[in-house]
Amino acid sequence: MAGEPRATKKILVIGIGAGNPDYLTIQAVNALSQVDVFFIVDKGREKGDLNRIRREICQRFIVNPAYRWVEVPDPVRDAADPCYRTDVDSWRAKRGDLYRSLIADEMKKGECGAFLVWGDPALYDGTLPILERILAEGRVRFEYEVIPGISSMQALAARHRIALNRIGEAIQITTGRRLAGGFPDHVDNLVVFLDADMDLGSLPDDIDIYWGAYLGMEDEVLVSGKLKALLPDIERIRKAKKAEKGWIMDTYLLRRNTPDKNP
Amino acid sequence: MAGEPRATKKILVIGIGAGNPDYLTIQAVNALSQVDVFFIVDKGREKGDLNRIRREICQRFIVNPAYRWVEVPDPVRDAADPCYRTDVDSWRAKRGDLYRSLIADEMKKGECGAFLVWGDPALYDGTLPILERILAEGRVRFEYEVIPGISSMQALAARHRIALNRIGEAIQITTGRRLAGGFPDHVDNLVVFLDADMDLGSLPDDIDIYWGAYLGMEDEVLVSGKLKALLPDIERIRKAKKAEKGWIMDTYLLRRNTPDKNP
Repeated sequence: MAGEPRATKKILVIGIGAGNPDYLTIQAVNALSQVDVFFIVDKGREKGDLNRIRREICQRFIVNPAYRWVEVPDPVRDAADPCYRTDVDSWRAKRGDLYRSLIADEMKKGECGAFLVWGDPALYDGTLPILERILAEGRVRFEYEVIPGISSMQALAARHRIALNRIGEAIQITTGRRLAGGFPDHVDNLVVFLDADMDLGSLPDDIDIYWGAYLGMEDEVLVSGKLKALLPDIERIRKAKKAEKGWIMDTYLLRRNTPDKNP
Repeated sequence: MAGEPRATKKILVIGIGAGNPDYLTIQAVNALSQVDVFFIVDKGREKGDLNRIRREICQRFIVNPAYRWVEVPDPVRDAADPCYRTDVDSWRAKRGDLYRSLIADEMKKGECGAFLVWGDPALYDGTLPILERILAEGRVRFEYEVIPGISSMQALAARHRIALNRIGEAIQITTGRRLAGGFPDHVDNLVVFLDADMDLGSLPDDIDIYWGAYLGMEDEVLVSGKLKALLPDIERIRKAKKAEKGWIMDTYLLRRNTPDKNP
């Protein structure tokens, strides 16, 4: 349209995979090289290690190092909110304000900015809905593109050398919060994200667990076998590693040992 | 151990992502360069296009071209078997025989063989359980390693620029066969693999669909919106593309428009 500035801002949401820099895709590597400014939202304790890996990824894969790095603290989340959804929602609104001002103030027209997302932006990550929210408000304008990445769920399966499903079975991906309601019916394979507590003592007996922490990283730990027998070991390892490193990133698959009836 | 041959055979199961060669990870590219022999199981109609992409991937990413290429026809599946699980199981046994003879006869000790898997070997692919079955028989010996890849589910989400879950929700990954039983309870997001028919007319009204075919490829088609309104369009596109190309690879996300109650 006449009078319209031609050079718009472009945002790339780049999945950088789960831990191992070799999980980056060719598409992600090519995307990194287009970026003028990386926005890093600092999440506190994990900061040191994870931001180091992010910087290493950029140093290793970007040929032309003429990029900027803008680091901002994550908005505080109101953990006292009794409702998880409104809690996350109000935190996302704060992140939306932050991202909008980053895009408005830290990028020139025609530049390319990027958010680097652990794992895959499609799984339990708020970046895409936050960008949609900013566009819906209409106060800043930009294009954006999404680059998928290897999620921790896939790293878990690959490192345990298993498929996530047996023949014809469904897989459910859920959260620690939801799992508190019990193992869902009609599902044999349950991948659990975001479980700070691993309060699994009341699950049925006949379940196998495939657990992994720091997947793809130097500190990777893998445990698999009968849930009931292994839970104390896993709890011990989690506690020790968390004390040692100050943070833990882990995920697990629970599998009914005796499959549900054939659908 | 004394007397044991030191150089064992090594198999790599390499996820090559969904369609777009740029979905390959650095890990997969590095793995390709270790391979002495690629085993390609020919699946009939898709053969021409998909094997061309596989060969292009090898040509593009392998620096030293001293590798062999062994192409074998896929064992015939007994579609008349009324039970899906025993049908797939007996077909996997046939594939097991085939893979065992490939590993036994087409590889020398110390060599590295590879199976290239579309998407991610962890999702609705038989290669890993087939290799486990061969090792359990004990007639041939080998080591193996798994390299995860971007699945069609992730390509779908990235191309539609959506997360697969909304805040705190579960995601179920299922098959067309299972979906025939209806939209599962307590799940808002349903990713469907392996659905030849897309017989979705009897699903509830309030569902959005995000559909994609030939994801990441030249022929990519994306459709999203109200399922009820779009189903005829999608059926028409599927039929036309299938007639044109002789095969279709598609996947979709179904999402309840009104989320379930907060868990």
